[in-house]
Amino acid sequence: MSRVFYFIKPIEIKRKKLNLRILVNCVTINKTIMPNISEKGKRMPASPIRKLVPYAEAAKKRGIKVYHLNIGQPDIETPEIALNAVRNFSSKVVEYSHSAGILSYREKLVDYYKKNNIHITADDIIIGAGASEAILFAMNSCMDPGDEIIIPEPFYANYNSFAINAGVNVVPIPSSIETGFALPPIADFEKVITPKTKAIIICNPNNPTGYLYSKEELNILKELVIKYDLFLFADEVYREFCYDGKKHFSVMHLEGLENHVVLIDSVSKRYSACGVRIGAMISKNKELMATAIKFAQARLSPPTFGQVAAEAAIDTPPSYFEKVIKEYIARRDVVVKSLNKIEGAYCPNPSGAFYVVAQLPIDDSDRFCQWLLEDFSFKNQTVMFAPATGFYATKGKGKNEVRISYVLNVEDLKNSMICLEEALKVYPGKI
Amino acid sequence: MSRVFYFIKPIEIKRKKLNLRILVNCVTINKTIMPNISEKGKRMPASPIRKLVPYAEAAKKRGIKVYHLNIGQPDIETPEIALNAVRNFSSKVVEYSHSAGILSYREKLVDYYKKNNIHITADDIIIGAGASEAILFAMNSCMDPGDEIIIPEPFYANYNSFAINAGVNVVPIPSSIETGFALPPIADFEKVITPKTKAIIICNPNNPTGYLYSKEELNILKELVIKYDLFLFADEVYREFCYDGKKHFSVMHLEGLENHVVLIDSVSKRYSACGVRIGAMISKNKELMATAIKFAQARLSPPTFGQVAAEAAIDTPPSYFEKVIKEYIARRDVVVKSLNKIEGAYCPNPSGAFYVVAQLPIDDSDRFCQWLLEDFSFKNQTVMFAPATGFYATKGKGKNEVRISYVLNVEDLKNSMICLEEALKVYPGKI
Repeated sequence: MSRVFYFIKPIEIKRKKLNLRILVNCVTINKTIMPNISEKGKRMPASPIRKLVPYAEAAKKRGIKVYHLNIGQPDIETPEIALNAVRNFSSKVVEYSHSAGILSYREKLVDYYKKNNIHITADDIIIGAGASEAILFAMNSCMDPGDEIIIPEPFYANYNSFAINAGVNVVPIPSSIETGFALPPIADFEKVITPKTKAIIICNPNNPTGYLYSKEELNILKELVIKYDLFLFADEVYREFCYDGKKHFSVMHLEGLENHVVLIDSVSKRYSACGVRIGAMISKNKELMATAIKFAQARLSPPTFGQVAAEAAIDTPPSYFEKVIKEYIARRDVVVKSLNKIEGAYCPNPSGAFYVVAQLPIDDSDRFCQWLLEDFSFKNQTVMFAPATGFYATKGKGKNEVRISYVLNVEDLKNSMICLEEALKVYPGKI
Repeated sequence: MSRVFYFIKPIEIKRKKLNLRILVNCVTINKTIMPNISEKGKRMPASPIRKLVPYAEAAKKRGIKVYHLNIGQPDIETPEIALNAVRNFSSKVVEYSHSAGILSYREKLVDYYKKNNIHITADDIIIGAGASEAILFAMNSCMDPGDEIIIPEPFYANYNSFAINAGVNVVPIPSSIETGFALPPIADFEKVITPKTKAIIICNPNNPTGYLYSKEELNILKELVIKYDLFLFADEVYREFCYDGKKHFSVMHLEGLENHVVLIDSVSKRYSACGVRIGAMISKNKELMATAIKFAQARLSPPTFGQVAAEAAIDTPPSYFEKVIKEYIARRDVVVKSLNKIEGAYCPNPSGAFYVVAQLPIDDSDRFCQWLLEDFSFKNQTVMFAPATGFYATKGKGKNEVRISYVLNVEDLKNSMICLEEALKVYPGKI
């Protein structure tokens, strides 16, 4: 937006509002001649997970070690079998795949789901560039601008962004830290259903809360979905990460809901392979899939290398998951126990995923998380969380909560929790 | 959509139009209980490039060899240097990258563009999952639902799909086979500009026509863009493929247009690496890039393996391109000469990309292309084209035109053209 000298010609200012500051006699002006960006773009929120990154980078430049508990990027190794498949890629040309994904991969996924008691065919699957693209396919295929989607909050922050992208309005229903973020009462859903309501989305096990929905809760949702003829989107990317002997119950296990259910999946967390960008949209609703494939065709195909890795990853031995789950349980226990020992803090003990939402004795989680990076260190270390405000659609909610991803090893997590405890002793906005 | 027996309860049919066929006394009904898909989804066109694939598959099952000239999937080998980079991937975890793309890759791209006399910084680049995602970022950041984008037609069919995705209206301007699909007269643009017009998009060299826009044509667009304060999107993914000694002139070479120009790029065609899904949105407009990065953050990151391949590919030696360009010129010459020898057919001799739009003596290109796969073979071979109708937004246009991708070797192309000539002798809809 440099300063330019410009002679005003009426035709050029007729059409648009220009940001003009007229100096003398309309001859030289300090102006920005450029088209406006979109209102949609203005409404897009900055990522609550990534918006504090510049502060973290500045802290590191000052020589401070930052524990990254803000993002769901696990330190767990990607299975060798997946990496080797890519290392052994032998084609001479990296070609487009089928728009719905490589057929052999989709066929192998059918087996994977069968083991999870989910019975589908390769035609019920469209591979996306991560769950992100799969959600966009689902929203765009099911919903028009102005339609409404109900989401129990706090929820995965990017649902907001995908909804804005698709022109869809998010209608939040509060879930509460007191119940461990269980499914809100069904009456709360019914209160907000309008003729514009088209879908409900849940994440199970939940990001950001770690809550694992029960079979009973899903059956309640089933009744609701049938009663009001809604789509039920279920983001089950943390399916493998269920703890304390609890079993995952999928929306795909709900009978009679074949035309309503859309399963959103991803290999990012399952195989600690976030960078492959491979997810899936799965539904038995033929009309819906025939629509979604048109969105998939427009962008030609999902990433080939990622699909090669993901296909091979399906053969990851069960021992890999046993080890990983044991590790996550140990990590969760450190985080939850440490948090609950801190005066004024509270954290439920969730049964899935690798996140918790913790309540802290603070005035403003955005201010606190920034302060941790900008103004605090303990033994030259600090910790980075995601302010929970970004996981709520209701303004003002989550101000005394942070989301913590337990994606570092137990030692690092212990140090992080010590940092937090020390920080709360000196944070000027403590309440 | 199975037949179900259903007891009507008033509350369940109050809200939605259901497809009900009442049989006797409202007790058993043949109905489809399912939520409606979106109007947006209904408007999405099937890909003109891919919609005939089932007919091609059926032909192959009958033992017929199908020459695939319908899709821009080159048979050229991906540079070894790119494949080896992926084969040597040594990280233990396939992590998310920066939402804008791996920094070292963006920095290396800066050098690549410098060699093309395009001067940008790493901050001016957001890596997308192909040019497809980059175009969606650009549209969503610049335009709101109901806004208009002008596109000279015929144009890359998926611009239509991306526009529908973003709720944007495509306003086509006809270009003509008589001029080889040169830029339409500027008066044609001005005629359709309204207060809703936000952008123009061009593809240079052009897909589907192969036309290479001149410096003079781009300067005419520059005047227009400034006069009406519009964004100018330029899809330059075929930059390297310019023939007959002609040089590519980029929109990035236009001075004084820094805030208006958005460059769309991709490595798919450049390195014959369509499956890596790596493209880029590039602009010097800071406000625009600050907006676009929010869309990029929402989907976390572009594919990591693809970026590794694309970064290494920048070191592809010039000899690779010399060889490839020589090959494409030989192919184009075969196709153009063969076409112009066919009675009633006409094809301009374009200077770029690897497509031509040819006029054929046929009644309906959709019918003809399907007939080629369903009902025709010559020496047990047939050929697959993309009907040009899918590359026009104006209904009825392109009915006597097909798009031909010359992505096969000279021998296969010669055989394809013989097939075409023979087909036209017997096609029942010949005119």
